[in-house]
This record gives sequence, structure tokens and C-alpha cells, in this order.
Amino acid sequence: MGKVVTLGEIMLRFSTETGIRIPQAESFSIHYGGGEANVAISLANYGHQVLFASKVPANGLGEAVKKHLNRFGVDTRHLLFGGDRLGTYYLESGVGERAANVIYDRAGSSFAAMEQLEWNLESLFNGVDIFHISGITPALSEKWRALALDIVQMAKKSGCKISFDVNYRSKLWSPEQAGKFLTQILPYVDYCSAGSLDAQKLLEIPSYSGTGRKEEMTYYYQAMQKRYPNISVFYSTNRTVNSASVNQLIGTMWAERNFYESQCHMIDPIVDRVGGGDAFAGGVLHSLLNKDTYSKAICFATAAAALKHTVYGDSNQFNQQEVENFLYFGSGKIVR
Amino acid sequence: MGKVVTLGEIMLRFSTETGIRIPQAESFSIHYGGGEANVAISLANYGHQVLFASKVPANGLGEAVKKHLNRFGVDTRHLLFGGDRLGTYYLESGVGERAANVIYDRAGSSFAAMEQLEWNLESLFNGVDIFHISGITPALSEKWRALALDIVQMAKKSGCKISFDVNYRSKLWSPEQAGKFLTQILPYVDYCSAGSLDAQKLLEIPSYSGTGRKEEMTYYYQAMQKRYPNISVFYSTNRTVNSASVNQLIGTMWAERNFYESQCHMIDPIVDRVGGGDAFAGGVLHSLLNKDTYSKAICFATAAAALKHTVYGDSNQFNQQEVENFLYFGSGKIVR
Amino acid sequence: MGKVVTLGEIMLRFSTETGIRIPQAESFSIHYGGGEANVAISLANYGHQVLFASKVPANGLGEAVKKHLNRFGVDTRHLLFGGDRLGTYYLESGVGERAANVIYDRAGSSFAAMEQLEWNLESLFNGVDIFHISGITPALSEKWRALALDIVQMAKKSGCKISFDVNYRSKLWSPEQAGKFLTQILPYVDYCSAGSLDAQKLLEIPSYSGTGRKEEMTYYYQAMQKRYPNISVFYSTNRTVNSASVNQLIGTMWAERNFYESQCHMIDPIVDRVGGGDAFAGGVLHSLLNKDTYSKAICFATAAAALKHTVYGDSNQFNQQEVENFLYFGSGKIVR
Amino acid sequence: MGKVVTLGEIMLRFSTETGIRIPQAESFSIHYGGGEANVAISLANYGHQVLFASKVPANGLGEAVKKHLNRFGVDTRHLLFGGDRLGTYYLESGVGERAANVIYDRAGSSFAAMEQLEWNLESLFNGVDIFHISGITPALSEKWRALALDIVQMAKKSGCKISFDVNYRSKLWSPEQAGKFLTQILPYVDYCSAGSLDAQKLLEIPSYSGTGRKEEMTYYYQAMQKRYPNISVFYSTNRTVNSASVNQLIGTMWAERNFYESQCHMIDPIVDRVGGGDAFAGGVLHSLLNKDTYSKAICFATAAAALKHTVYGDSNQFNQQEVENFLYFGSGKIVR
Amino acid sequence: MGKVVTLGEIMLRFSTETGIRIPQAESFSIHYGGGEANVAISLANYGHQVLFASKVPANGLGEAVKKHLNRFGVDTRHLLFGGDRLGTYYLESGVGERAANVIYDRAGSSFAAMEQLEWNLESLFNGVDIFHISGITPALSEKWRALALDIVQMAKKSGCKISFDVNYRSKLWSPEQAGKFLTQILPYVDYCSAGSLDAQKLLEIPSYSGTGRKEEMTYYYQAMQKRYPNISVFYSTNRTVNSASVNQLIGTMWAERNFYESQCHMIDPIVDRVGGGDAFAGGVLHSLLNKDTYSKAICFATAAAALKHTVYGDSNQFNQQEVENFLYFGSGKIVR
Amino acid sequence: MGKVVTLGEIMLRFSTETGIRIPQAESFSIHYGGGEANVAISLANYGHQVLFASKVPANGLGEAVKKHLNRFGVDTRHLLFGGDRLGTYYLESGVGERAANVIYDRAGSSFAAMEQLEWNLESLFNGVDIFHISGITPALSEKWRALALDIVQMAKKSGCKISFDVNYRSKLWSPEQAGKFLTQILPYVDYCSAGSLDAQKLLEIPSYSGTGRKEEMTYYYQAMQKRYPNISVFYSTNRTVNSASVNQLIGTMWAERNFYESQCHMIDPIVDRVGGGDAFAGGVLHSLLNKDTYSKAICFATAAAALKHTVYGDSNQFNQQEVENFLYFGSGKIVR
Repeated sequence: MGKVVTLGEIMLRFSTETGIRIPQAESFSIHYGGGEANVAISLANYGHQVLFASKVPANGLGEAVKKHLNRFGVDTRHLLFGGDRLGTYYLESGVGERAANVIYDRAGSSFAAMEQLEWNLESLFNGVDIFHISGITPALSEKWRALALDIVQMAKKSGCKISFDVNYRSKLWSPEQAGKFLTQILPYVDYCSAGSLDAQKLLEIPSYSGTGRKEEMTYYYQAMQKRYPNISVFYSTNRTVNSASVNQLIGTMWAERNFYESQCHMIDPIVDRVGGGDAFAGGVLHSLLNKDTYSKAICFATAAAALKHTVYGDSNQFNQQEVENFLYFGSGKIVR
Repeated sequence: MGKVVTLGEIMLRFSTETGIRIPQAESFSIHYGGGEANVAISLANYGHQVLFASKVPANGLGEAVKKHLNRFGVDTRHLLFGGDRLGTYYLESGVGERAANVIYDRAGSSFAAMEQLEWNLESLFNGVDIFHISGITPALSEKWRALALDIVQMAKKSGCKISFDVNYRSKLWSPEQAGKFLTQILPYVDYCSAGSLDAQKLLEIPSYSGTGRKEEMTYYYQAMQKRYPNISVFYSTNRTVNSASVNQLIGTMWAERNFYESQCHMIDPIVDRVGGGDAFAGGVLHSLLNKDTYSKAICFATAAAALKHTVYGDSNQFNQQEVENFLYFGSGKIVR
Repeated sequence: MGKVVTLGEIMLRFSTETGIRIPQAESFSIHYGGGEANVAISLANYGHQVLFASKVPANGLGEAVKKHLNRFGVDTRHLLFGGDRLGTYYLESGVGERAANVIYDRAGSSFAAMEQLEWNLESLFNGVDIFHISGITPALSEKWRALALDIVQMAKKSGCKISFDVNYRSKLWSPEQAGKFLTQILPYVDYCSAGSLDAQKLLEIPSYSGTGRKEEMTYYYQAMQKRYPNISVFYSTNRTVNSASVNQLIGTMWAERNFYESQCHMIDPIVDRVGGGDAFAGGVLHSLLNKDTYSKAICFATAAAALKHTVYGDSNQFNQQEVENFLYFGSGKIVR
Repeated sequence: MGKVVTLGEIMLRFSTETGIRIPQAESFSIHYGGGEANVAISLANYGHQVLFASKVPANGLGEAVKKHLNRFGVDTRHLLFGGDRLGTYYLESGVGERAANVIYDRAGSSFAAMEQLEWNLESLFNGVDIFHISGITPALSEKWRALALDIVQMAKKSGCKISFDVNYRSKLWSPEQAGKFLTQILPYVDYCSAGSLDAQKLLEIPSYSGTGRKEEMTYYYQAMQKRYPNISVFYSTNRTVNSASVNQLIGTMWAERNFYESQCHMIDPIVDRVGGGDAFAGGVLHSLLNKDTYSKAICFATAAAALKHTVYGDSNQFNQQEVENFLYFGSGKIVR
Repeated sequence: MGKVVTLGEIMLRFSTETGIRIPQAESFSIHYGGGEANVAISLANYGHQVLFASKVPANGLGEAVKKHLNRFGVDTRHLLFGGDRLGTYYLESGVGERAANVIYDRAGSSFAAMEQLEWNLESLFNGVDIFHISGITPALSEKWRALALDIVQMAKKSGCKISFDVNYRSKLWSPEQAGKFLTQILPYVDYCSAGSLDAQKLLEIPSYSGTGRKEEMTYYYQAMQKRYPNISVFYSTNRTVNSASVNQLIGTMWAERNFYESQCHMIDPIVDRVGGGDAFAGGVLHSLLNKDTYSKAICFATAAAALKHTVYGDSNQFNQQEVENFLYFGSGKIVR
Repeated sequence: MGKVVTLGEIMLRFSTETGIRIPQAESFSIHYGGGEANVAISLANYGHQVLFASKVPANGLGEAVKKHLNRFGVDTRHLLFGGDRLGTYYLESGVGERAANVIYDRAGSSFAAMEQLEWNLESLFNGVDIFHISGITPALSEKWRALALDIVQMAKKSGCKISFDVNYRSKLWSPEQAGKFLTQILPYVDYCSAGSLDAQKLLEIPSYSGTGRKEEMTYYYQAMQKRYPNISVFYSTNRTVNSASVNQLIGTMWAERNFYESQCHMIDPIVDRVGGGDAFAGGVLHSLLNKDTYSKAICFATAAAALKHTVYGDSNQFNQQEVENFLYFGSGKIVR
């Protein structure tokens, strides 16, 4: 099994029950999550040694974050305590034709407000196989763009493979800001999660005009790889949003000049889609550490993402065996 | 924005959770609603000045009704307190092939038992643009048929446009009783919600034998308008009941000798369909007050009705901007 | 109306809420059920006099079982109290593509550990029309196979019709053990629930190679009847598992050399499928006692099974009138 | 064990959670109960054969009542189905200094609206030891006063002992009405629950001017017995209401010219006091049937009443052994 | 009835259930409240015309605040929408010896971050009898100290009586900062809630060395009034904290050179003490507007405060009649 | 900080809500706990390195146990997976005079059924300061008595201090069996939790006939120490059970020939008393590792035990700082 570090912000999510709007709510369900924390949990579920580096306030909410991660066996010795607050957001669940609705209240969090790298990076990266970070972290501030570059360079120097998930959030930064940052970071990256929209909007790759998902994705992956030959694996999901309750999910991957894709998962109904992309990334990184074939990797990762949609909360709750059983046994039967 | 008065009964609904039958229930969810109260709330959400006239008992349940309406900004100065009880009903939620099941316990309510008009009608209708009432009120009793006619005539005299929603309830009166009343009230009406079944069963318009929804509805609307040329707008929804969990909804309208219809909304799953028709009527009245095109009006109203199906309770919980966003952005995506 | 005895184990089920895995659960919903107990409840709902014979521990859980059965009017004078424990199992609800997951903890239960028949059989079978038992009981132990044979022979001698539901559970015994037992018991059976898999795997009837559900089922039913001419009615359900949330259900029956089948029920969404097969068997036995036509019997039984899927818990919660209304009025409309 | 008939109204109670007022409630807990139904359940718990006679509507709520009674083994063959509605009331739980608040909505119920005795009284009273009825039934209407007298006379003639619980409800009738009825019914009564307030306010016995609970109660009991020498046992509880959350309870009894009283139960906190008096009456009747000493009877009955305060709902949930263990082992220890 | 304006911050409170710590919580209950908003609600409950001026974000949480206030009939036309966020705090309920625990996350709220007065003050104060504000508002920032002084002077000029509740929060400012501000604002104040600790710590009145609550409070009130003869009424509560579950509450008042005090309320158990002091202030202001005697005023206000402790949330949920009934009928009886 | 190993069984607890009896329950709350697991969690909360050794089934319930322990930072590398089942018990919460009621269903658990020591004891005890075990483990079986002796001797040899909590369970073994085992194990023990009942009933020390808690406890502690001079610290709690809702708790300790006792904690109301004794033992061991004075140790430990009673579940949820704040700041105030 491998050793992995992920670094990023972790937030407190307040969710309404299906069919209740935020102004009506008399209670909120609570979940803790964030892109990199979710990937950490997936990898810990699969048996890897995982450290999550972040910063949370020194109060009961910070304590909750620590316990949440420990529960899954994620190592929290690099989870710092301090600063002003835990970032939060409110999620009004969507249903059917009605989309979910999000209110962010994350500004000024202990993590976002960091002015310098407060971790002992030497100790953090010691013996680590993969360092994973997402585009949400540099999106937080100009300062974090610089810090993220520093930390990636440090990780690279320490011998880590660099995993980067573009994870573009239009509420946090503009395509121009994101695009500029990508040109700075992608030269250090080994594994990159980026889709066709990222390619077009952030990397300014001309739109594909042909037909066929395979052809289209191959076009974008090739164009991206041409620009960043250092990246050995590209991957992303194709999500068809039938409604807030029903989605179809296909995973695609580009590795060693070949295109791979998974079967299509019909997710009906969706229990909670937050963290689905992180479960996908976690599945890909696991398969790479596990030296699975690319073909198995993309199927495993997409199955993991589909499973995540069937449970509440940001966290993947399935171990390797459970994902594989799901992959091989198909739909909905009870064995008694 | 306009000024509107709606008048009718408001009841307490006891609902079971999905998958629990009434004889098993250990608790009931509570909602307050009634056709005209629901329309009042929709219009208040859209920024109109709305008064709701009714009568409730002078106890905690009557107080609950008042607070429920105030919450949405509906003016309750014409909500009277007195009488014996609040009408109630029990709703066993349906699911899939199994239909919902209703037990009414509404007889003898403070509103239904009124013997005379206890509101100050002069003050009630002062400066009001639209007076809205539904067929449920005259269905309550012979006495209420007379009172409803009186009040509509009074409203008309005060310069209000009269909005009437047929809202036929077979458990309250016979088609003959309803048909007779309709011939008395419709001559005063300006805006009328009536569908093909109402036309056939209550107004005895011969059944349409052709094909095509547009052609069919045009036939009925024309026939009704021929009889009541005073009515400037007819509207209704076409609901296809796939199951208790899935419905399809199309809104249609007849105005200025033209037929208008909305896109089809696939409502899957239905959270709570009670109040869907009232949200539709509220949307139509808003659009008329707002002087929208009929084409926009029918789309707005049907979108409002579809949205109502996605929340618990009788009340539309969406403001004008939210309905319009839903209308223009389509299905199920989160913006992050 | 008839008089029926059913005999078997009744267990305590712990269920998670949809979207929550067992290791996450902070609470479990509780239901009591077992194949023969569920059939007893169905028949009591339909107005028959039903006794359920079993054994439960002399503690609050045994008391809960008694009250559960009494609630539906099942006679518990032959429910024995004693032994060590109530058998239990944990059900992690499935959703969409993800199947449900079961953890059994039933070994050593008061019923399973019985060493001899502790009921007064003479009194138990006095005046009884049908004695119903399922294959789960002999699956419990070698000892229970002998006891089950004894009790069936005794019932037969007392003049009962014998109803047997194969109900094969691969977690309890092997196909060989089951097959051997079937050859011993089937000669005493009058009504038998057995499907195509039972025919192939347990009775070693060669696989059907043709097409067509009707043809296939006829083939298996005929083959089984040839072997056991004493069995006057065979029946089973064809379940198409689209996902853990959506199933299609068709009931089939073989009686007096004719094949009967019900309409197809699209169960979407499934609330709780546990007990669906027992509701089906209960519907068949009711129709037989009621001397319905076979054609009506299979429709009634399948409707009863479909309805069971719309409520939580193992128990059918519908009376005869409600099943018939469901059968004749179709899908999802509220009458108001 | 004995055979007992109780007869009266059973209602649906809607309760708020502690700390939530009725106008705020978003859900209500549901309980079914009524004085005579609660006594029936207590006696069934203690192993007696008990029939409950009443009338409920032929809908899901009536069905719920039947299942509720069956659950405890109460025989419902004399529970009639028909009429308009089930009587209901809303209970806003009190806490600390704040008293509970009740809204009655019981007028016009199937039971209260009965115009004649619809039970087969011969069959009802066949072999019955005790017929129990309370003052709530004659309080319902002038008509019911006549019917109650008729039925008591009939029961007497059939050889039943008559048990009567005054149970005065000031919201239903005046002291004068009640007093007049008492003079008519008490000549038939054998066992009577009546306290010092009943003696003073309804029977116009002059107030006691001395001190001492024992002396005071002896005075009233003697005065009542002088007037109605046919009554062999009088009993009542002395309740000290410290607050809505804390009460002290002492049971007293007068039998064979002797005064008996129980220990004092400190009930802190009260979970639900509704039905406490009925559990007390149930305990007394059980002890009389069981031929316990009066000294044991009053202790058993008061312990049963105290226990009732520790569970939600109107129903006593304890069997004879559990009440006796509670009586002899005292306070709050877990045996592990 | 009077017309009142209150102005201040309103926040979102997240509460855990009793017995659950913040790091364990899987959900939070939601309440909206703030000192001045709570006073506004109390006064609206008592029938006064009340406007609440504040600022909340233009999102679903701001909408929730508006609906919360409207529900009680508080006029929200001066509730501004804009700014970054709604202030929040997390309350871990205390129980028994364990105190409640609070985590504030209120910095940078739409209200706290206001840089200038954005209300139309002329319109706001038009015809207003009392303007009420608390010490929490100036505690928010240096800027708000200046704004609070401005607004109070403006209100004074417009003819309002000024009501000020010291409400000292040690987590927001130092005693020195508070003391300095008090010397600036108190010269404008008419009604002032200030207790013995406020007198000592903020106004630097020498400690009382004698005995007796009445004597002690008289000493402090006299000392304060000597310094600020413009203040016609001083009032405060004496709270004895037995535990987090049990408090005793006595209200005291100083008016026209006389000392008044209420009976002692034993609050056992406490349901939710947040807002108790605001219910007290609301009761005092109501009695002043109502021109009650001071003696009645202090009893009414303390009863209102005690009642508040029996319901969840910050808001007083009782009207004038209910407070008076509570005051006159005492403890814990149900009238049936 | 120290390094500690605890070893024992961990079980799944099903609890009813207050006011609901087991036969009524429709759901159970879930908690995982056991004496030694609870001590492990307390010590991990206080910052020690703690390993918990046990055995659980290789299914979702075993996984839940692992995650539960990991959540608090307890090291689970010596938690074995295998065997048949997780031991369970049902707890019907007591309230007021009514005691809690327990149904055990723990026989045949993976831990109880162990036939030999399956841990690598060398690795387990490497560098460990304290090995803690309780009397529940040897109570499981004759086999476990032998295994427990072996493991304690092994631990002793490895240089651990031995901590033993008598924790007598009358439902598992007789006083004779326990007494005999104690004479075998106590010669190896360094820290021992044993109270006056243990001394009398298990060690057959003659009853104390004098008065005074201090004198009585000193008598028993001295007598026990005389017999086992190897034990350096004895400790136990004096619990006064006012009712199931209110207890008083005093901790006492005997060390270096001196008697120490804590203040008395009035626990009112009790939220959940399960695990209170384990929190006490955890507090004592922490203080010993921390080299606190005995006087501080007994106060810290008793405060920790009192705090445990204020939260649901078996686990202490407080860290060292929180226990100390509770100890020094006393009762029930919110700091705002």
C-alpha cells in the first residue's frame, strides 16, 4: 500500500432535508468535508497510509474535524489548530427538476486566512508516494496561489508524485485567474483530473466540433497532454444531469496514449452527490498506487464515485472489497 | 404590484411519512393550507399586497394559522377568530402505484359553520385589484353558496376583478349542485380556472371527440367562453399521473381568443402535490397583475406549480426570481 | 372465512435509513417478522382466524413479538416463551444500483434451538383448514428437518391442507440439503410456492431452453407437478430487479392444469421489499380459502405483494377491500 | 383471572414535544386513549379477559383504535364501526411551572353522537365479573346520561359488579348536572373512585375542617358510604402538584369500614401523566379480582399509577410482575 | 397600544440536543434571535406595533430572518438586505452541573460590518413611543459605538423614550470600553436594564457590603440613578444558577424612588434560557406602555421571563393573556 | 504522556428513548462500549497513547467498532476480526422511580468465544506503562478466567503496571466464582478499583459496623490492602441512587496509607449513566500517569465520571482541559 498526503480546506456543511427550503429549516444535518479531505478518506478506506494537512480553529468544530478524519484512519498529526473560524456552507438539497442551492459562508476561515506554510514540510513529505491537491486551494486567494505553488514544488523535490484536480469553482475565481495559475502548476503535475470544460475554458483549447464521446475526450486529453507532456494520467467524469435526482456517470482516462472509459452508472435516485468527484479521484489514485491496469482503474474509480452518490455526506464509505463487489455483481439484489 | 383579497377555508393537515399507513402512524406532520390561502401566499411571495379573509377558532390552532400566514407577509386583519373548531384532514401519502388516501374531518369548522358574512366588506375590498375565491367554499353548504354569491357581487361592485377556481371536490357536492352554482357565479367572473372535466361534467359541454391536446383544450375553452364572454382568461393544468410518485404537468391558457401552453414538467419524484394547483393559479394571477405576456404567464405559472411539488406543505415557497431562474436554467445542476 | 395455522421463526430486524451504512448508523429502525408470521398477519388482515406457533424468549423482546402479532388479530396462544434469545438481523437498505446488505445474527435463537415439538399439536390443529410452513424452518438445523416433517405429517393427519413455501436461503443450507428435504416433504403438500430456480437447483429439473415467460413457467410447473401430483396449486413471482429502488413483479400460478398470471406491477420506488413474497403467499392462500377463481387469485396475490413494497416493515398492512381497490383503480390518484 | 367489560369513548390525542407550543408545532405525536379503554388495557396486561365496548368511525383512525386495543390483548368484538368522526384533543405538554394546555375537538364523535345502545348487551355481559364505566360518558350529553343509566342497570341485572369512576370534567358538564346524575347511578355501584373534591362539589358533603390526610379522607369516605351503603369500596388518589414536571402521589381506599393508604410516590420527572388515574383504577380492580388484601391493593394500584407516569401515552405498559417488582425493589437501580 | 422600534443584530443559532456535544453532533437545531429582535417579538405578541431595524444578507438566511419576524407580526420594512453574511453561534446545551458552551462565529456579519446608518431614520422614528437598543450593538466595534450614539440621539430628538439594556458581553468588549460608552449613552436613556454587576464593574459604583437582596439592589439602583437622574426606571433580574437545568429568577425594579420585586420563579427544568432576559425587558416595556403599576409590571415581566425558559428558541411565545394566566394560576395543573 | 493497553469485550448497546419501553420501541439508539474500551477512550482523550485489544466479527458491526475507537484516537492494530458475532444488549432507560431494565444477548460473541490468546503479546505490551483489565472479562467463562490470568502475568513480566477494576456483574458469575478468581489475580495488581460491597461479598471482609463514610471506606481499604500489600492504589465511587434520574457521586481513594475523597457531585438529571464508572477509572489512571497528587487525582476522576453522566453513550467525551474547567468553575453558567 502507498503513502499519500493531501492538503486543503475542510468545511462544515449544513444541509436541509429533501423538500425543505433553507428559510423553512428548523434543523440542519451536519457533514464535514472538502475535496482533499474526501480523497484522503477514500484512500484510507482502501488501506493506504494517508495524512491530511490543513488548519482548523481550536474549538469544538476543529475537534469535530479531527475526529471525523480519525474515524476513517486518516492521520491528523499535520492538522493544525488555530485561526478564527471553520469555513461553512449551506446546501439546500435539490430534487427532480429543482437544482440544489448553495450559500457559501467560508471567507476568513483558519485555512483560507493562512499567510504562510505552517507545516513542517520535510516531515510532512517524508517517504510519501503521492501529494494530492486541488484547484480549490489556489482559488482561495492570491496568497494561496503562491503558497500552493511553493508546496507543490517542495513535494516534487521530496520525490512525491503530484496529483492535481482542477476542480474549478466559478464562485471563487475567474477563468482567467484559474488559467494563469494552471500554466504555473501543471508543469509539476503527474496525475491530473481535468475535463473538457476545463480544457476549453481554462486552458483555451479550441472546442471540439466532431461527435462521439470517446473521440471528443481523446481530442481534449491529447491537446492537454501535448501542452504538458509531464502529466502521465488525465482523468475526468462525464456526468449527464437528467435531474437533481437522477444522473448518469461515465469515467474516462487517458494514459500512455490510450483512452479508457468505464461502463455507464445510472444513479437513480441520488442520495447525496457532494464528494462524488473526490471519490472518483480517490479511486484513480488507489488504482495507480495498486498498479491496476488503466482499464480496471477507470472502472474501479467510477464505481467508487457511483457508490458515493448512494450515501449521505461527503465521504466515501466503502472499502476496496465493497467497491469491487459492486463492480462485479451489478444491481440491487439481496443475498439471503 | 397589485392588491389582492382571497377568501376561503384554511385547514390543518395531518400527514404520515411515506411508507407509513394511518393506522400505524405514531406521529403526524402538520401543515396549514387551503386553496385560497395558498394562492394568497403565492402572491405575497411575489411581492403583492395580499389579504386573506377567513375564520378560525380562538385557540392555539387559530393562532397557528395566523402566524403561518404572517410568516409569508399575508395580511391577516380580516382573519376572524371564533366558532368551534378548525377543519382538519388526514393524508396518508401515496407512493408508486399506491395512491394517497384522505380522511376528511372538516365538518362544523368555524368557517364552514358561518351563517352570515362577518367581515367588513367595504374595508376588505377597498382598493383591491383582484378578489379570488374557489369552488370549495360554495361546496361547503347551501348557506355558503348564497354567501359566496353575495360576496362576489359585492367585490364586483367594489371594482375588483373576480378570479374563480372551479376546484371541484366530489366529496363535498354533486356535479348537479356544482353545475347549478356555476351558472350563477360565472357571469361575474373575469379569470377562471376550469379544465376539460369541469367543462364536461359541470357545464355539460359535449365531449370532444378529436385528437390533440391543443385542439381538445381549445374546443373546451371556446365552448366555455362562448357561454361566458365576460371571462377574459381561462386556464388549467393537464396532469398525467404516471404514479403517486411521478406526474407530468402542462399548463394551458385561453386568452384573447388564443391558446397558450407551457413546456411539460416531469415531476419525479413528487415531494408533496397538495397545493400544486393553487401555486398554478397564484402564478397566473401574478402574471396578469404583472402584465406579462400570456405566453410568459402560462410558463411562469406552470413552473411555479412544478416547483411546489418539490417542497413539503401546501405553500409555494419560491419568490418571483426563483421561479424565473427555474424556468430559464432547467434541470438539477448545482452552481458552485 | 377459514382457520389457518402458520409455524416458524420470527426475528427482530434492525434497519438503517436509506443512505446510511451500518458502520455509520446511530440508530436502527425495528421490525419484527418472519416468513410464516408475515403470512399469518396477511391472512388475519383478510378476516381469517389465524394462529401463529413459534417460540420466543421470555423477555421484553418476546413480549414485543406477541404484541406485534396481537395488533393484527393473530392468535398467539401457541406462541411459547422460553429459550435464550430472539434471532436478529441487520439490514443496510440498498438504493439505486447499490444492493441491500444483510448481517445475520440468528444462531441459537429460542426457536432454532428447540429440540422437540413443545406445542400441543392436537389443540393446535383442531378445526384448521390450512397449515402453512416454509423452507426456512427446516433450513435451521438437521433437528428441525425432522421436526418439520413430523409436524407436517401430524397436520395432514388432522385434516389440514398443507401449504409450503420453498423460500430457499443459501446462507442457511446447501441446495443438496434442501433438495433432499424437499423430496421428503413435498408428498404431503397441497399448495406449494416454488419458482423456476427452485425447480432447477433444488428439484434438479432440467433447464428450459425455449423462450417466453408463460411457456417457461408452464414447463417448470408441469415438471414439478408430474413429480408431485398431490400438489394442487403451484405459484411464484417473477421479479425483475431493475435496481434496489425499482423492481417489476408478475405473479404466476399453476392450478388444475392451467397457467395463470397477473398484470405486471412496476414498483418504483420500493419502500421496503422484505415480506413481499410472504404477502404474495398470503394473498394466494386467502383466495384459495375464499374460493376465488385462480385468475382472480393470482391478481389479488400479486397486488397484495406489490402493495407490501410500499410500506415499511415485513407486514402487509392492507385489508381485502384495500387490495381489491388497488387492483381495480390503478395508479396514484387522490380522490378528494 | 376475571372477566371485565369497560365501555366509553376513546379519542385520538395530538401531543407537542416538551418545549414546543401548539402554534409552533410542525408535528404531533399520536396516542389513542380514554378512561375506560385505559382501564381495559391495564386489566388485560394483568391477565384478565377484557372486552372494550365503544364506537369509532369506519376509517383508518377507527382501524388504528382497534389495532391499539388488540395489541394489548383487549377483545374488540364489541367495538362498533360507524358514525362521523373520532373525537380528538390537542395536548401542549407542560413543563416546570407552566401547566399543560388542552384544546378539545371531540364534539360529534361516533361515540358521543350515539342515539341508542347498539351493542348486544346480553352477549356483552355474559359471564362478566365487573362492568366498569366512568363519569366522562354521561357527561357527553343528556342522551348519554339516560343510556349510561340503562346500561348500568342491565349490567347489574346480568350479575356484574358495577365499577364507577367519577372522573369529573368541568369542561363537559356542570357540578349540578354531575351531582344529579350521581344520585341516579350510585345506588347501583359496587366500587367507586371518588375523592374529596367529588364529595364536596358533587355530593355536597360539608367540607372537612380538621387536619390530617387520613382523618380527612376517612371523613369523606364515611360520609359517602353512609349515603350509598351499597358501595363496598371507595378509592382515590391524593396528588400534590409541585409543578407540571413533578408530582407526589398517594393512593387511599375505604373498604369494610377501614382506611388504607399507599406509600408516597415522588414522580420526578413526569413523562406523561395522562392515564395515571386510569392505571390506578385498573390496579384497584385487578386487586379486587385477584382477592388481594386491601392493604396490598392500594399499594399495587398506586405503584401502577406511578409507573404509568414514566411512559408516553395513555396506556399502562406494565404487567403484574413488573408492578410488583417496582413496588418491592424501589428506586432507580440497574441490575447487571 | 404603543409603537416601538428596536434595532440590533439578529443571528443564527445552532444548538445541539441535550446530551450531545458539538464534536459529536450530526445535526443542529436552528433558531434566529438577538436581544433587540427578541424584545420586538415579545412586544408584538402583546399587541404593540413594533418595527425591527437591522441588516441581513440577501440570501435564504436573510429571508429566514424576515419570515421569522413576520411570523410574530413584527414589521420588517426597515430590515435591510445586503452585506456578506449572517452572524452565527453554536450552543452546546448544558445539563445539570455541566454549563452550556458557546462558540461564536459572528465577526464580519452584514450588521456588524455596517459603516454608516443605512435606514431612513426619519421614517423609522415617526410616531414611535419607545426606541430600544442594547449594549451588544455598541460592543460590536468602535464604529458601532459612534453609530449607536448617533441613532439614540436621533431617536431622542424624534420624541422617543430611550430604552437601553446594558447586556454586557465580556467576549465582545472590555469593562473599560463598556464603561466609557455607558457614560456617553446613559444621559439619553429613560428606561435602563442594569444589574448589580453592571453597577460595580462598568459604572464603578462601590460594592455593597450589607445583606439583603432588597437592600443591596436599592443601594445600586439609587447610586445609578443619582448619577443619571434622567433614567426613570431601572430594572434587572436576580438569577440564582442552581445548575444548568435549574435556575431561580426574581425580577427587581426601581421607579419613582421605590423598589419593587417579583415573586421567585423556580425554573426546573430549564428548556432553553437564551432570550430569558429579553423576555423580561419586553415585559417591562409592555407594562410601561400599558401604564400598569410598577408592582404589576415587575411581576408580569418576571413571569414572562420564566415562561420563556419553558420553550425552545430565543422567542417569547406567549401573549399577554397567557402571561397573566400563568401569573395568577400558578403551577402545573391541567384543566380538563 | 503514558502508553496504556486495555483489553476486553466491546458490545453494541440498543437503547430506547426515555419514556418508551422495549416492547413498544420502533427504533433503538446505538452505542458501542465496554468497560475496558471506555477506559481506553478516556485515556486517549487525555492525550495518552492507548491501544485497545479485543476481537469483533469481520462485518459491518466490527467495522463500526473500529471506527468508533479510531474516532477518539485509540489505536486498533490489536483489534482482531473474526468469530461469529458482536455481543449486544438492550437498555430500556429508567426515569424517576423506575429503574432501567437490561436484556443481555452477549453469549457466543467473537470475544467471549475465544479459546486462546490470539494477540501478539510481545508486541502488544512493548513499552507499555499500564495494562488495564476488568472483572467482566474473567466473568465470561472458565476459559477466560485462565486466559485473563495468563495475560496479566505476561503483562506484569513485560514491565506493565497492572490496573484491575473488579466491576462485579451478578448476571455473569457468582460471588464465589468471582471471589476465587480475585484471590488469583489480585497478587499481580498495582491499581485496583474495588468498593465496600466488593470487599464484603467477594473478599469476605467482615462488614463495618460503625458510622461515617470516611471511616467505613478506610476500614475496607485497609482490610483489602492488608491482604494485598502489592496494590498501591485502591479507589471506588460512592453512588447514592436517589432515583434513576438523580444520583449523587463521591469518589474515594486509598493510597500511601491515606484516604482521599472528592466533593459530592449532584447529577440531576442523569443523561446516561452507562460508562460512568469507566470514566472514573480513566480519570484515576490518567492522574497516576500524570503524577498528580492523590488529592487532585480523586477530584479529577470523580469530575470526569460526573461529566460522563451528562452525555449519551458509554464514552467520555471530554478532554483534560474540559474536565479541569468543570472542576474549578462549578455549576451551570454560560460565559458570553
